[in-house]
Amino acid sequence: MTDYETVSADVDDEEEIPEDHPRYQDLLTRHRIERGVEKGITHLQGMHAEGRGSAFDYLLGEETIPSADEAERVAAAHLLLAERPVLSINGNVAALVPGEMVELADAVDADLEVNLFNRTPERIEAIADHLREYGAEEVKGLEADARIPNLDHQRAKVDADGIYAADVVVVPLEDGDRAEALEEMGKIEIVIDLNPLSRSPRVAEVPIVDNIIRAVPNVTAHARELADADEAELRAIVDSFDRENALRTAEERIRSGEL
Amino acid sequence: MTDYETVSADVDDEEEIPEDHPRYQDLLTRHRIERGVEKGITHLQGMHAEGRGSAFDYLLGEETIPSADEAERVAAAHLLLAERPVLSINGNVAALVPGEMVELADAVDADLEVNLFNRTPERIEAIADHLREYGAEEVKGLEADARIPNLDHQRAKVDADGIYAADVVVVPLEDGDRAEALEEMGKIEIVIDLNPLSRSPRVAEVPIVDNIIRAVPNVTAHARELADADEAELRAIVDSFDRENALRTAEERIRSGEL
Repeated sequence: MTDYETVSADVDDEEEIPEDHPRYQDLLTRHRIERGVEKGITHLQGMHAEGRGSAFDYLLGEETIPSADEAERVAAAHLLLAERPVLSINGNVAALVPGEMVELADAVDADLEVNLFNRTPERIEAIADHLREYGAEEVKGLEADARIPNLDHQRAKVDADGIYAADVVVVPLEDGDRAEALEEMGKIEIVIDLNPLSRSPRVAEVPIVDNIIRAVPNVTAHARELADADEAELRAIVDSFDRENALRTAEERIRSGEL
Repeated sequence: MTDYETVSADVDDEEEIPEDHPRYQDLLTRHRIERGVEKGITHLQGMHAEGRGSAFDYLLGEETIPSADEAERVAAAHLLLAERPVLSINGNVAALVPGEMVELADAVDADLEVNLFNRTPERIEAIADHLREYGAEEVKGLEADARIPNLDHQRAKVDADGIYAADVVVVPLEDGDRAEALEEMGKIEIVIDLNPLSRSPRVAEVPIVDNIIRAVPNVTAHARELADADEAELRAIVDSFDRENALRTAEERIRSGEL
């Protein structure tokens, strides 16, 4: 892929990117990830991962398809039903949707927990600071006083009163091993991933095949809309969800959509 | 995309990546690009572009499909017929296939020319040095004493006795604007790009839809095989090529292949 070079994301501030630019979302995403790398919150490999994601998004048509919108509503219902919901934040999530994750945490009364593959104290601190700049009050993940079973030591670190104790976790852009280990712990897992056949969405209770930049605000919007719904209504939404259909529909869209 | 995290390319030396690893090519590619960024020869956006490419490669099955092999043979024939063939090198090409480009230049008696979108004297020097480490004797692109018509100033810079005067140019991972401008200059253009619908392969005389890591050594192998062919034989190879079919076949493979 090469056309990236003709639409430079090389602006100092994201407000310089014209919102009516046909590649607006892609430019915004690249700009945020690049700033994340520069700020030390995103690993260089995160830039590569984002590039992969952008190709799948291109194939999806760079829009929230109806089955993803439905999955986002189901995710909102799960989060509202949860007793201890936690939103997991890695370097790409922090770079791409820091304010959006803070807003979602607010809307569903969830905790935010920093959770990194390439875990260093500096990066964890930088990400926590970054989230606080966007309004986060409490950020978990710094204690790391519990372990997810069946994962190697570094990858397993979580907070005892955070992801470890959570009943519902949102793990956007999560890697397959950890997604699987969390599922084995019996958690209700909500994964956001642009490749419907990668392992994380396939093990998730709620796979959302959508760009995180569109998905997170949309989950928040659904949560606000459902704020007054009673438990029976939320359960009905959750029970009606067909995860296999969501994955299949996304795959069909990728195969048949405009390249 | 996330599974990148489970297969870390975080090794000090590429020889540490096991060749029988099912994701060997992807790991090797990411490792080389990451080193390129660290060495100052690859722009951070190159990591993103490589990620995009890797998604298309995944859809292609991460192999050289028969129509790409044919295009690589045609490219070899064009290079052998050329009077002034030039291989264009940008930051991703330098990071991914420095030795392979030097070998190809050798096999077809072509010049190497550094040609950057984000052009700075430091990056040009770093890339020229990098190519020399891999055995390049002469590296063009430092003079930049000619301009490609119909491109903005920075993007247009080339060497008068290099790309400007070339009859056949290999522009792997080229952006659409420049690919188009070179085509308008009447050059025979060979483009290597993993997305068959991006603008560069669509304007190229020879579009190669393949990973550059596989494509370049294969063009070299074809060139060696054709070293004793006479002009009539080379012309017959070149004339038999159907570029539309090459693009269509690659697109079909991407749509129907295993995700």
